[in-house]
This record gives sequence, structure tokens and C-alpha cells, in this order.
Amino acid sequence: MKPAVVSCAATSEETDGRPLPPGWKSYTSPEGLRYYVNCSSKETTWRHPSSSAEAPQRPLARQSSSPYANGSSSIAKASQPTETADVSLRKPATYKQPPGSVSPAKRQIKEVKETKITINCVTFPLPGEGPEQQLLKPDEWSYCDYFWTDKKDPQGTTSLPGFEVLLQKQLKGKQMQKEMSEFIHERIKIEEEYAKNLSKLSLSPLAAQEEGTLGEAWTQLKKSLHDEAEVHLKFSNKLHSEVEKPLLTFRGDNFKKDLKKYDHHIADLRKQLASRYASVEKARKALADRQKDLEVKTQQLEIKLSNKTEEDIKKARRKSTQAGDDLMRCVDLYNQTQSKWFEEMVTTSMELEKLEVERIEWIQQHLRQYTTLRHETDMFNQSTVEPVDQLLQNVDPAKDRELWVKENNTGEVRPVDMDI
Amino acid sequence: MKPAVVSCAATSEETDGRPLPPGWKSYTSPEGLRYYVNCSSKETTWRHPSSSAEAPQRPLARQSSSPYANGSSSIAKASQPTETADVSLRKPATYKQPPGSVSPAKRQIKEVKETKITINCVTFPLPGEGPEQQLLKPDEWSYCDYFWTDKKDPQGTTSLPGFEVLLQKQLKGKQMQKEMSEFIHERIKIEEEYAKNLSKLSLSPLAAQEEGTLGEAWTQLKKSLHDEAEVHLKFSNKLHSEVEKPLLTFRGDNFKKDLKKYDHHIADLRKQLASRYASVEKARKALADRQKDLEVKTQQLEIKLSNKTEEDIKKARRKSTQAGDDLMRCVDLYNQTQSKWFEEMVTTSMELEKLEVERIEWIQQHLRQYTTLRHETDMFNQSTVEPVDQLLQNVDPAKDRELWVKENNTGEVRPVDMDI
Repeated sequence: MKPAVVSCAATSEETDGRPLPPGWKSYTSPEGLRYYVNCSSKETTWRHPSSSAEAPQRPLARQSSSPYANGSSSIAKASQPTETADVSLRKPATYKQPPGSVSPAKRQIKEVKETKITINCVTFPLPGEGPEQQLLKPDEWSYCDYFWTDKKDPQGTTSLPGFEVLLQKQLKGKQMQKEMSEFIHERIKIEEEYAKNLSKLSLSPLAAQEEGTLGEAWTQLKKSLHDEAEVHLKFSNKLHSEVEKPLLTFRGDNFKKDLKKYDHHIADLRKQLASRYASVEKARKALADRQKDLEVKTQQLEIKLSNKTEEDIKKARRKSTQAGDDLMRCVDLYNQTQSKWFEEMVTTSMELEKLEVERIEWIQQHLRQYTTLRHETDMFNQSTVEPVDQLLQNVDPAKDRELWVKENNTGEVRPVDMDI
Repeated sequence: MKPAVVSCAATSEETDGRPLPPGWKSYTSPEGLRYYVNCSSKETTWRHPSSSAEAPQRPLARQSSSPYANGSSSIAKASQPTETADVSLRKPATYKQPPGSVSPAKRQIKEVKETKITINCVTFPLPGEGPEQQLLKPDEWSYCDYFWTDKKDPQGTTSLPGFEVLLQKQLKGKQMQKEMSEFIHERIKIEEEYAKNLSKLSLSPLAAQEEGTLGEAWTQLKKSLHDEAEVHLKFSNKLHSEVEKPLLTFRGDNFKKDLKKYDHHIADLRKQLASRYASVEKARKALADRQKDLEVKTQQLEIKLSNKTEEDIKKARRKSTQAGDDLMRCVDLYNQTQSKWFEEMVTTSMELEKLEVERIEWIQQHLRQYTTLRHETDMFNQSTVEPVDQLLQNVDPAKDRELWVKENNTGEVRPVDMDI
């Protein structure tokens, strides 16, 4: 006979004579099994609540973390020890439901409130639950504050750990410096081509026959192209040694190896965490099974359904207790592993952050060297024109005529009349 | 019977009774012919000098020339009219020798001193003869002073008129400006190639994924190559319009035509001069023939060798006189033509001199434009680097981290311990 859903106005008296603590009521399930409900917290249990005490609250937010590998500890160390409490006293409030059964009063019995959620084996507080978290490094947009969650792949169901995002950023940075180096290399080629062309033209014999002061100015003009070529060649050489090469060789191959090491280390810790989580789930299930077994046996005793002795119940109760201890141990191991992963995440992401700052500053420094070389080049180039200016200023047609006439005249004796 | 050489101490008396003017002596040639000598001027003649008067001296040096076609007259105008004198009074002193005979007294009779020489039909004073010539334009090394003589071709016997040397200089000048223009054209090609390469590289996607303030600086750096390309393209365009083209088109084809005109005009005058000179030589020979004929006839009369009448002698004398007049006319025409050539030479060579000054100044001006453009280019080029400098100065690793983290973070909720 299935019991009708009953209202909350049930007896506060236990049929077995034990008084219920205040706020507790007892009901009968459709199967005729008695169960107990705490009207204020909406907890439900098969067990008589007379022997339960309030289990102390576990701290929900972790406020501490290890200092950096390099010794700076700007994060507040507010460690709170993990609390252990007697499983038998613990409210099964975190069970989703009394095991195995239909929720006794769907309408009345609310779920024990979920305050945490485990995603990909990492446990987070749910929004609005637990004490508010402060950033580890407020106002710094630090890597260690923003990459805890795994990133979902928009298309599929795979996800990328936040740490991988940071690693990819590093690899991209290395790629960027390589591409910048290539760009400079291309510039060098252009400069060398330009210099080669100018140098070749400066040797041209065009108008070489121009003489005098104009000829000198012209000769210097042609030579100035060679001087310009030298300037550009010098520019390209310095570009190579002071910009291209440094950009290319900054953080050679060891860098990638180091990144791989970080990658594997963090990934291993996640794998360990996953394994620990599996153990927790397994232990949880084992405990649930043991508890169900105990309940069933206890009920059967109460309704005199079998010849189970008190011994059987005690055995079931022991197993249940053990399973509870196992669960506790598993959860502890899980939490330790998670802490370890947490510490490594903070340390390593801070290291990556530092590397990125250094990368940006290195590139900035060398690109400034590029602009310095450009300024220099333009100035040196200016100076190649000055001797030409000077000689052009000295161009003197009268002087050139004198020089040419002295060289080329045919005779200055003027003709005279013929005599008869 | 050949007469012995007689001394100068001859009689001052004529066998025919006429008294000799003072300073004249008479002698007898080996053939027995009487001849007369002026002891001071060393003139010799067959004719009795009693009816001769001193012929006035012809001016030996031409001190004048026409003003320039353009009206300036910096040369002193000291015209001396051509003197004409009665041929019959003229001393034949300028004859090389009394015609047809051996010099009567070689030892005593000196050649009439040569003071002028005609080379290629142009008549010049011999060195040291005649009044000293002053330069038409002293201290200026002017074309009009130094190109009177024809220039001998070192290998052969051809010669080049001085004027041709001046013309060739002009043609060479035109060639020089053309070659300079070609040089500039080559520079333009080099600049365009450079600009093209820079522009292409500026579009490169290398390191385009760099973000934040560093990304901005890098983007501007790449763009600055395009700005540089624009600067060089502008340079090459201005080189074309302000240097190459003017140099090429300065004094287009008309210049060569004008030079040809000068060339032909002067050459024609030389041809005329040559033709006049030929006439003079012809007239000289004709006179010599006539005079010889007269002498022979006179002698024959004196030694009663034939029955020639006085009439024949008079006829011969008349022909002789006419031949003398012809010669005078020819020499006058020659001198006029030479004067004309002289004037044209002065005018035209001054014109060429002016053209050369203009050419040099034009080239100087446009080469200065070249150096101005170079200066400009280097300055504009400098300015393309400034925005890059500015952005590099603003590179801020912290800002870049903030931007990137805001964009790419996976989650800031930190993990917490799992509850049991």
C-alpha cells in the first residue's frame, strides 16, 4: 500500500516512544517506512534524529596559497585547517536524496542546498555560496587569478585547461619574436639591394667629361651615391647584429623545453586529481550502499520483518562507519592533491607572467634600437650631401672658362690687313 | 759678260744725266742692266727714282673691331681708313725681288723684311713685328681672344678652325647635360625600386598577431616602411620634374640648329676669304708678269737690241699700271672680307661664351635642386620614425597583460576543498 502524500502536520511523537528534537517531524512512506524531516532545514533521514548533533560547517573558501617559488609572498596566508568531524554525527545533508527511494515528499522536501560544484574533477564554490573570494593580486590582472576554469571548446565538448591557454600565449610570443626577426631580415635585404644599386650607379661614366669647377661638383655628386650606399650598408649590418639576431636568438630552444616541463608537471597533477576524484566517487557510493544496508536492516528489526539479530545491525553499522572513514580519507587525499595543483598553478602562472613581461620589454628595447638606427642612418645620409653642396657653391663659370681656354686655345694673335 | 759684284761705292750720278735723289745709288747688274738702290730703306728698283716720292706707310696692325651684335662695345674703336696711294708712286719695296732677275748685290741687298704671314688664307703679323696687340678683353680669358689660329691635327695635315673648337665645346656641353639627365633617371629608378620594396614589406603579416601596446607599436613600425616608401617616391617624382626633365630639355633641338647656323656662317666667310686670297695671288702674278715684260722691253730699248718703239713701252707700262691697280683692288677686297670674318668671329664667340656661362649656371642651379631634394628626403624620412618611437615608449607590459587577460581568461573562481 502506497502511502498518500502526507502533510507536514504529522505527529511529533515517534511511535517507538523516543521524543523527536524540536522542529523534527516523522512521516510514513508509501512503503510504510518511517522517515524523519527537519522542518526548518528540510533535511530528510531514515534515522531517528534524537542522537544527531549539528555537524560543524566546513570552511567553504580556501583563503591561503603557498608563496611563490622565488620567495615573495604577497598573497595573505590565512590558512584554516581542514576540519574533521565524526562521520556518524554528520548530517547526510549533502546527499542528494535518501538513498534508493523516491523522494518522500517531493513537494516539501527540498534538496540539500548545493554550495559547490566539481567540474572536470576540480571543485569550485557555486555562485553566491560561501565567503566572497578576493583576488590573489588585486588590480594586477595577474595570470594566477584568472585561469582556474577549463575553457570550453566552442564547437565540441573538449575543454582546455586555463594553464594551457597561458602556455599557448607563451608559444605564440616566441613565434612573434621569430616573425619580427624575419621582418627585419627582409628589411636588411632591401637595404642591401638599395646600397648595391647606388654603389653601381656612382661608378657611372656619365658626364665624366665635364671639367672645371662644375666637373668637380658633378664628380662629388656621383661619389655621394657611393657614400649613401655605405650608410645604408652600415645600417643593414647593424640591423642584423643589433635587432634581427637578438630577436631571433632570444630564449633559444631551451625555452620550449622549459615550457614543456611546466606543461607536463601541471598536467600530471590534474591527472592525479582526476584519479583522486574517482576514488572519492567510489567511496561515496560504497558508503551509500553500506548506509542503505544499515537502514534496511534497522527497519526490518523495527517492524519485526526478519530474524536479524542486533549483531547483524551492529555489523552493518560498523561497515557503514568504515565506509564513512574511507570516504573521509579519499576526500582528504583529493583535497591535498587539489591544494598541490593549486600551488603549482599559482607559482607557474606567476613565472609565465614574468616571462611575458620580460619578452615584451626585450622586444621593446630592440625595436627602439631599430628606430635609433633609422635616425642615425638619416643623419649620416644627410652628411653625404654636404660636400656636394659645398662644391656646387664653388661652381664658377669664369674660372671654368679660364681653365678650358688655357687648355684648348688655338692662338691669340689676331689677324691684320694684308699689305700689297 | 757677267759683271763683277760691285761695291756700294758707286756713282751717285746717272749715266743718263738725271740726278738721283739723296740716299739713292745706281749700280749695274752682271747683265749690264742698271738698277737703283735706296741705301737707307734698302729698296731696289729698275726705275730711276727721281720721279718717286716716299709712299706713306700702311698701317700694319688693325686696332679696331665692330661692337657686338647685342650692342655692347667694350672694344676700343680705333678705325684707320685703308689708304690708297698712286700705284705709280708706290715703291715696289714689298716685292720680294726685282722681277725675273738674280738679286743684283746679294751681299748688299737685303730682302724686304717680312712682317706678316698668311696661313690658311688668314693674315697675321709675325712675332715681334708691328705694334704689340692687346687682348680685346684682358683678364677674362674670353673666347674672342684665343681662337684666331686654326688648330693643327696632330696626326695629319688637316686643321680645325678655332671657331670649330668653340662649337665642339658647345656640343659637348649639350651632351654633358643629357648624360647628367640620364644619371638622374637612373637614380629615379633606384628610388622607385626601393620604394616598391619597402611598400610591399610594410604589408607583411609577420607578427600581426602581436596585441596590446606592443602590437600597436609593431603595427606602426610596419606602417612606417610604407611612409618611407612614400617619401622616396615623392623624392623620385621631384627628381624627375625638377632635375631630370629640365636638364634634358634645356635648349632643345633648336640649339643644335642655331649652332649649325653659326657654323655655316663663319665657314662661308672663311671660304670667301680663301677665294679673295686666290684672287690676290692671281693678281700678284699678273702684275709680276706685266712688270717683267716692261723691264725687258725697256732694257731692249736701252741697249738698242730691237726696233721696239716707245709706243710698245708705253703700252707695256700701261698694262703694268693696270695690273698694279687690279692687285690693289684684290687686296682691298681681301681685307674687307677678312674684317667681316673678324667681326663675326668676335660677335659669335662672345655669344658662345655667354651660352656656356648660362649652361654652367643652369646645371649648377638644378644640381643644387638635387641636393635640396636629398636634404628634404632625409628629413621627411626621419619623421616617419617618430610615431614608432612614440608608441614604443608607450609599450606597457602590465597594460598588455590586462588587455589580454580580460579577453582570454577562463575563470576567476578559485577551487575550494571538497566537502564530504
